[in-house]
Amino acid sequence: MTVASTPPEVHADRIARLQRDLHTNGVDAMLIGPSADLFYLTGFDAHLSERLNLLVVPDTGKPSLIIPGLEAPLVGEARKLTIVHSWADHEDACDLAASVIGDIDGKHIAVGNQLWSAFLLCIQARLGGATWTEAGPLMHGQRMIKDGAEIALLTEVSRLTDEAWEEFIEGPPLSGLSERDALSRLTDLTAKRGITDTWGICASGPHAASPHHATGGRLIAEGDAVIFDWGGKLGGYQSDVTRTVFIGHPSDEFKAVYDIVLRANQATLDAVRPGIPLEQLDRTARRLITDAGYGPAFIHRVGHGLGLEVHEEPYLVEGNDLPLAAGMVFSDEPGIYLEGKFGVRIEDTVVCTKDGGVRLNNATRDLTVMG
Amino acid sequence: MTVASTPPEVHADRIARLQRDLHTNGVDAMLIGPSADLFYLTGFDAHLSERLNLLVVPDTGKPSLIIPGLEAPLVGEARKLTIVHSWADHEDACDLAASVIGDIDGKHIAVGNQLWSAFLLCIQARLGGATWTEAGPLMHGQRMIKDGAEIALLTEVSRLTDEAWEEFIEGPPLSGLSERDALSRLTDLTAKRGITDTWGICASGPHAASPHHATGGRLIAEGDAVIFDWGGKLGGYQSDVTRTVFIGHPSDEFKAVYDIVLRANQATLDAVRPGIPLEQLDRTARRLITDAGYGPAFIHRVGHGLGLEVHEEPYLVEGNDLPLAAGMVFSDEPGIYLEGKFGVRIEDTVVCTKDGGVRLNNATRDLTVMG
Repeated sequence: MTVASTPPEVHADRIARLQRDLHTNGVDAMLIGPSADLFYLTGFDAHLSERLNLLVVPDTGKPSLIIPGLEAPLVGEARKLTIVHSWADHEDACDLAASVIGDIDGKHIAVGNQLWSAFLLCIQARLGGATWTEAGPLMHGQRMIKDGAEIALLTEVSRLTDEAWEEFIEGPPLSGLSERDALSRLTDLTAKRGITDTWGICASGPHAASPHHATGGRLIAEGDAVIFDWGGKLGGYQSDVTRTVFIGHPSDEFKAVYDIVLRANQATLDAVRPGIPLEQLDRTARRLITDAGYGPAFIHRVGHGLGLEVHEEPYLVEGNDLPLAAGMVFSDEPGIYLEGKFGVRIEDTVVCTKDGGVRLNNATRDLTVMG
Repeated sequence: MTVASTPPEVHADRIARLQRDLHTNGVDAMLIGPSADLFYLTGFDAHLSERLNLLVVPDTGKPSLIIPGLEAPLVGEARKLTIVHSWADHEDACDLAASVIGDIDGKHIAVGNQLWSAFLLCIQARLGGATWTEAGPLMHGQRMIKDGAEIALLTEVSRLTDEAWEEFIEGPPLSGLSERDALSRLTDLTAKRGITDTWGICASGPHAASPHHATGGRLIAEGDAVIFDWGGKLGGYQSDVTRTVFIGHPSDEFKAVYDIVLRANQATLDAVRPGIPLEQLDRTARRLITDAGYGPAFIHRVGHGLGLEVHEEPYLVEGNDLPLAAGMVFSDEPGIYLEGKFGVRIEDTVVCTKDGGVRLNNATRDLTVMG
């Protein structure tokens, strides 16, 4: 598959829709720093650093883009969508931002969720009288519902990540390898398929009971459950898969726990349909795991949206009553974590269609034993 | 060299010093998210995500650490330095943060520079009446002056990065390789020396005129200048080196420009001494390049501090009259960028001692020709 970049007219449409949403919600302008929001709206993959990059989107009229002069060559097509203001290292970027934003006394300004506080505070110090709110809810409305091109990229990056897994489990034994080296083997197999910015967690033995374990030097050994949670990007879109393997002969307890997690993963998928509240998916997995006696060991939500970011809206968590809608893409990742013993997590990326959930990952979910 | 982790008593000292500085500056508390500031103070390398991690440092008394429950196993030694408050996915982290911070009406609160605005805004929405300021200046006072253990790590990571370069330039020709593949070869040589989190830029031919070029698929060819700007981490501390090579026979213009940049790099080093304003180093390089007729082509400051971050205070830029002090570590990286033609940058890491500047990089700065 050739990865085409998003055409400029798609970015223009996204900005126009955002401006309509700003207007409808009584927001006068939005400020966005380097982030997936900025990339989604303009295609500009700005460098996140102490040098201010800032997109200013008014509710009507052309947006402005404030950039460090030395990064001007990176702006590309976004130059056509915006009025570009560049600043040199010896100039004050916050003064420039304040003059571009203009008088905001009595206005309502939304701020991109990931803009560094230092930038927000320096702008607030120069421009008084405004009401400040999070831009997140305004951006999520668009970004949560993926279009056909986005779903095609998510499908392809998931398929290639699955391929890497299938090659990995047919490969040499893991016993004796450090977590770090085992993970490198898997991310290398992923990267060789054209996936960039690979990342991952390898958590072995008792470490597998820590969902966000920091992969380290522990040597994988017979009797370990080993969780691999990894992914990477294709055309900007992320994969995110988790599989749990066992080294040697799994105990009855491990097999039982594995089966519960697998059934929770399947039950969550089966529950997907447009219109139900997102928290319903978390409840489905949680009820099954609780009924099996492991409720307190399922210590996180059942899933998160993904797209340009590995974690993004919508979150599949108790308290989120937003209705599920066709075009939402999210992880389905129940887990059971037994401190001092082992952990199991099985994660697929799922897209919600009008007919229900479709898995984008098809790497085997059967209990896999490796050497 | 075995990389020892920072002892807990060093973190306790750093927190105590920060609290004295808060008190002296009339600041009642500081809020710090996942960042080098957090790692510097506590040794906790928190996961940056939509899940709130927040260190609350009052001007007296034990700091509090707010963390997602599923990341509690990552806290490690920082548990002894703080009161840990964990929250589950279905709970509201901002409510917890507000209750931990407590009443701040009339108080002065400093906010870590890189805390996401969404977290600042959600806390501000719950707690009124405070004055908010950037934490940066309070943190920099400590972080800018490296202690002996920090300088030892910076020296070692720089030495290993130099070794990678020496092996790289003795290796196969670059002609015909993509920028991406050439950079991978160099970062692989760096990683195999135990340096983690490697990063880099490879900018070839006309791309070398863009200081922060996004490394891509352009094939390196005879007649190209090629800039490599790369580094990585050892024990948390960064290297950051730039070298420019020529493929084939350099023109007289390239040789002349290379010589000017090399002399500017040396003049900057020679000017280092405690007590002079930092901007003086930028002026030294800029005057030499301007006198040689290339002033407008030197489109960035001459350097930046580095340590736990690749870019941190102090910045060597016009307008920064902070006095240079022994223990400051920074880059010395003049460059000349000729749009449509080529670029040259030569960068070393330098430590300021009481007797002047000492380079931590010693990879050859002689004009290097590769195939």
